[in-house]
Amino acid sequence: MPKQLITITFPDGSNREYKKGITGLEIAESISSGLARAALSITVNGDIIDLNRSIAEEAVIAINTWDNEDGKYTFWHSSAHILAEAVQELYPEAKFGIGPPIESGFYYDIDFGDEHISQDDLEKIEKKFLELARNKNSFTRRDISKTEALDHYRKNGNEYKIDLIEGLEDGSITFYTQGTFTDLCKGPHVPNTGIVKAIKLTSLAGAYWRGDNNSKQLTRIYGISFPKQKMLEEHLEMMEEAKKRDHRKLGKELGIYMIDKMVGSGLPIWLPKGARLRRTLESFLRDEQFERGYKEVITPHIGNIELYKTSGHYPYYSDSQYDPIQVDDEEYMLKPMNCPHHHRVYSNEMRSYRDLPLRLAEFGTVYRYEQSGELSGLSRVRGFTQDDAHIYCTHDQLKQEIKHTINLTSFVFDTFGMPVDIRLSFRDDNNEKYGGEMEYWERAQTEIKEVADEMRLDYTIAPGEASFYGPKIDFIIRDALGRKWQLGTVQVDYVMPERFDLTYTGSDNEKHRPVIIHRAPFGSMERFTSILIEHFAGNFPLWLAPEQIRVLPISDDQNGYAQQCVNTLKENGIRTTLDNRSEQIGSKIRDAETDKVPYMLIIGAKEQDAGTVSVRRHRKGDIGTFGFSDFLSTVKNEINQKLLPED
Amino acid sequence: MPKQLITITFPDGSNREYKKGITGLEIAESISSGLARAALSITVNGDIIDLNRSIAEEAVIAINTWDNEDGKYTFWHSSAHILAEAVQELYPEAKFGIGPPIESGFYYDIDFGDEHISQDDLEKIEKKFLELARNKNSFTRRDISKTEALDHYRKNGNEYKIDLIEGLEDGSITFYTQGTFTDLCKGPHVPNTGIVKAIKLTSLAGAYWRGDNNSKQLTRIYGISFPKQKMLEEHLEMMEEAKKRDHRKLGKELGIYMIDKMVGSGLPIWLPKGARLRRTLESFLRDEQFERGYKEVITPHIGNIELYKTSGHYPYYSDSQYDPIQVDDEEYMLKPMNCPHHHRVYSNEMRSYRDLPLRLAEFGTVYRYEQSGELSGLSRVRGFTQDDAHIYCTHDQLKQEIKHTINLTSFVFDTFGMPVDIRLSFRDDNNEKYGGEMEYWERAQTEIKEVADEMRLDYTIAPGEASFYGPKIDFIIRDALGRKWQLGTVQVDYVMPERFDLTYTGSDNEKHRPVIIHRAPFGSMERFTSILIEHFAGNFPLWLAPEQIRVLPISDDQNGYAQQCVNTLKENGIRTTLDNRSEQIGSKIRDAETDKVPYMLIIGAKEQDAGTVSVRRHRKGDIGTFGFSDFLSTVKNEINQKLLPED
Repeated sequence: MPKQLITITFPDGSNREYKKGITGLEIAESISSGLARAALSITVNGDIIDLNRSIAEEAVIAINTWDNEDGKYTFWHSSAHILAEAVQELYPEAKFGIGPPIESGFYYDIDFGDEHISQDDLEKIEKKFLELARNKNSFTRRDISKTEALDHYRKNGNEYKIDLIEGLEDGSITFYTQGTFTDLCKGPHVPNTGIVKAIKLTSLAGAYWRGDNNSKQLTRIYGISFPKQKMLEEHLEMMEEAKKRDHRKLGKELGIYMIDKMVGSGLPIWLPKGARLRRTLESFLRDEQFERGYKEVITPHIGNIELYKTSGHYPYYSDSQYDPIQVDDEEYMLKPMNCPHHHRVYSNEMRSYRDLPLRLAEFGTVYRYEQSGELSGLSRVRGFTQDDAHIYCTHDQLKQEIKHTINLTSFVFDTFGMPVDIRLSFRDDNNEKYGGEMEYWERAQTEIKEVADEMRLDYTIAPGEASFYGPKIDFIIRDALGRKWQLGTVQVDYVMPERFDLTYTGSDNEKHRPVIIHRAPFGSMERFTSILIEHFAGNFPLWLAPEQIRVLPISDDQNGYAQQCVNTLKENGIRTTLDNRSEQIGSKIRDAETDKVPYMLIIGAKEQDAGTVSVRRHRKGDIGTFGFSDFLSTVKNEINQKLLPED
Repeated sequence: MPKQLITITFPDGSNREYKKGITGLEIAESISSGLARAALSITVNGDIIDLNRSIAEEAVIAINTWDNEDGKYTFWHSSAHILAEAVQELYPEAKFGIGPPIESGFYYDIDFGDEHISQDDLEKIEKKFLELARNKNSFTRRDISKTEALDHYRKNGNEYKIDLIEGLEDGSITFYTQGTFTDLCKGPHVPNTGIVKAIKLTSLAGAYWRGDNNSKQLTRIYGISFPKQKMLEEHLEMMEEAKKRDHRKLGKELGIYMIDKMVGSGLPIWLPKGARLRRTLESFLRDEQFERGYKEVITPHIGNIELYKTSGHYPYYSDSQYDPIQVDDEEYMLKPMNCPHHHRVYSNEMRSYRDLPLRLAEFGTVYRYEQSGELSGLSRVRGFTQDDAHIYCTHDQLKQEIKHTINLTSFVFDTFGMPVDIRLSFRDDNNEKYGGEMEYWERAQTEIKEVADEMRLDYTIAPGEASFYGPKIDFIIRDALGRKWQLGTVQVDYVMPERFDLTYTGSDNEKHRPVIIHRAPFGSMERFTSILIEHFAGNFPLWLAPEQIRVLPISDDQNGYAQQCVNTLKENGIRTTLDNRSEQIGSKIRDAETDKVPYMLIIGAKEQDAGTVSVRRHRKGDIGTFGFSDFLSTVKNEINQKLLPED
């Protein structure tokens, strides 16, 4: 191989020879001009760098565009610099702190001196931002010595950057300049400012320098930017929609749950409609699990502290646990997890290989301490119910059981119309924190990957994301607004069988250790319900709706027939109510729409005479008049099939 | 009215004139000679006295026979004296302590000196007992002065009776004598020893004098006696049967629950079959309650201590409560009851008279401390789940709501084939411990009685048995062995609405206090399950059985058809398993009988060819061959009708 060529490997594993010193942009151009136009940065052996930097060694690379996380990261990082440039133009006295990209957008912390910045000023800054972006100024990187960098900011009078530079090593410092603005920055950046076409400065907040509340409070400006104006509009619509769907708002309006300070912070109470929803979810999963060979157990909400000393969760996780309660000469804990209880059920009998796999399931309520500032609605709470299960199996059964759990989890999310991304969370070999024997880890990771391949799953591998006691499979669902939530996990555990001395007698008549799979598709009933509320905007599929049908007689004359309809629907197991208040039909309909009742049956004299029902679908309006039994079989089908609401 | 006549009122409210000084026996004779023969004692204005004592004033009376509690009390009290007489004959040095009747039989505490009494000696004592009883000696009562009484026992050398007499007031002391035995005793007694026809001395125990473990330990002999030999035989059979049915034994054998010291004493874990049974019970009651307008809520298992300070349960009941847990600057309690949580749900909204009655139900798990010596299986535990509900209603709705709860409770026990006795537990007007306003109590007690009369219930009234906050209705069920268990209660509460400041807006637009009804038909899932296990001896009705049908192919050749049967049964919601082990059919049947599976389907080549099933009913054996669909519709009917097992 001539010395001036290097091998570049692409994400799909293919590779190609390039001359040494080639840039990211040139690689992109060599693939397609479209890719070159879309390119924002390049990831080289795990580091994201500018497209115009030269690559000197053979490398695994990825061209980053708006469509991947690294691309967005670069885009928003550059946007933070443009924001700073705009502020500098409008407020020459402003001093800049730090301005990183975040999960969704970016911010910059700025010391405006005596100037007071309010929401009203943001529009002016946005305008300047777009003006500067349209200049298509390129981002120029420059290595700079520590002395020179300090000098620059001393002249500038910016104590924040000086503070930052003092923590850096000489030789590792770079400045980036676009237009009139220069910033201390490691990069990378997009090729030029013109790529940023749309900006929204979303909010202002106070932020202490370096998060230290003894330091000065700076003004943090949050923003989000896009390569197309239309994307911004869609984003703002999505944010507006998310606000409307906020489960804390809808949860109250729909009577799903309440939180009462006198009962306790972070301890949601399921109100009648919420309890109905939850029981429906539980029955759905319980039946499905029963069908798939799970066995339900019910264990107490407290346990002797010895359980948690044995598992190692006490005192290791005692920060998130409540203080023990003294009972006679023993100490009891509010159960922070169900595992040890289930392990003791396993140990209650001698187990043989013929008894395995043993799949113990429980809707188990656990209590974990969260700081009061962290609590939020149903999604961050101090008590929650896990749809927990532990599968005890032999090593030979592990692959089959992993498939079994993946199938169940996928089935569950399919039912709610939620697409799932799968992440295999593996051990980081450079980290010593993991328990259990290396050989088991290797085998489990290999088997998990084999299962994922055999099932043709679309997955990513995340080294270092494993739990303490074994590798896991994480399910990341996307809701109707495209937001991602990590829900169900499947974890392989080699540690607890040792700690709890779990054994089974093999066909060789010898004692062996089982493997444990921990899994919970919903994760917690509380958090999953908060996601469901937002995913469906409270317009639950018929099978889930706490109130499925409301019957609305137009006048008292129809109360008899209306009641008859209600009775028949109820006998068919359909959750039906009767609104026989002496109100106008328009107002009855309005109330039912507000309560998001999927079907309203309007009963007038005509319907009564004909034995029909006039049907109104929530959010759709009148859908016609049906013979009662036709309607009944339609809704029964919709419930049994668990059909999703049409949009 | 001539001076020598007095009015005697009978239990049914009727009355009759008798000459002053008439005896109980004479009154009984005036009614019927049969009653006179059966009479054991008479209750006069609440006091039980001998039949031969004269009655000087007008009185409410009841003639006591073996068929009522007061009669049995007299019978067993006299039996204790005969036991003492027998012991005195056989062990002249024996010194007697106390010998009272108990719920089921009687005992006598005896100091045998240096003599050691063992189980083997009891037969000899029984023989002597019967010999003495056959003498038909009458019990003679004698008033005696304190001095004379002390002299008697000083001569006798019995320090125990002396100890007792020293605590008595002169003028109130009586001796009773039958045959050669005289005892310090208030009475009453049956007319003569001949009435006692059968005796069983059931056990021996040690008992410290006056329960003080610094005093001497006496020998306690327990016995039970009957007016007929046949009754004793039936009783012994019942005891034998009760031992077989003991839920601690059957609960383990049938895999209903386990208790694990490492998890915690008194904290049962519901094993798969028990969880299935419990979920079936819960669904049954949940559906029934939903149908009857209850709304389910789910509340956390802990609550801020303020809830219990407000209710007054803390620190008042703190002996039975676990220590509070510190969380930040608040204290939380493991929930000892669900009431305060529900009251806060009530307060979560403004309530109007149109919202009432509001019936909030919860299967709420509560934790109460019990001493470890008191714990027993599922019946005495430290954590249990109440089938709790609170009904918030107006005063005008109270009667209707009481009816509503009585109807539900009766319906529930009917379903299990358990006859119910109803007790109205009212306030004791001489006791000051009750809360709330007198006028409400009066009204509630009147209304409860009116409801009971309107519903034509057969009830007794128990003054002094009310709860602190209001009168209640207790349901005492009788199980298959005739044993009584107090289960469901319905309690009327005027106190908590005040303490929690609960209000509703009346039609007059003013604020009013609702009344609360607390009720729980099962009481606790744990205790009720323990009773169900013993009531049915583990042979649950089909609808309740954790495993309803087991399919037993005779050889592997039938596994396919057998699996098909299992699938169809499961699709019909029937809990079915397949025993396809390579075992002899006889051994498969034996195992299914041991597991008390209601139906076994034996599948041989003949059945497979004909599409039939050969059906075996647990405890009945083969009941014939049926077409599969005929069998299916029969069992579906048995489940839907919740038919009880035939005996």
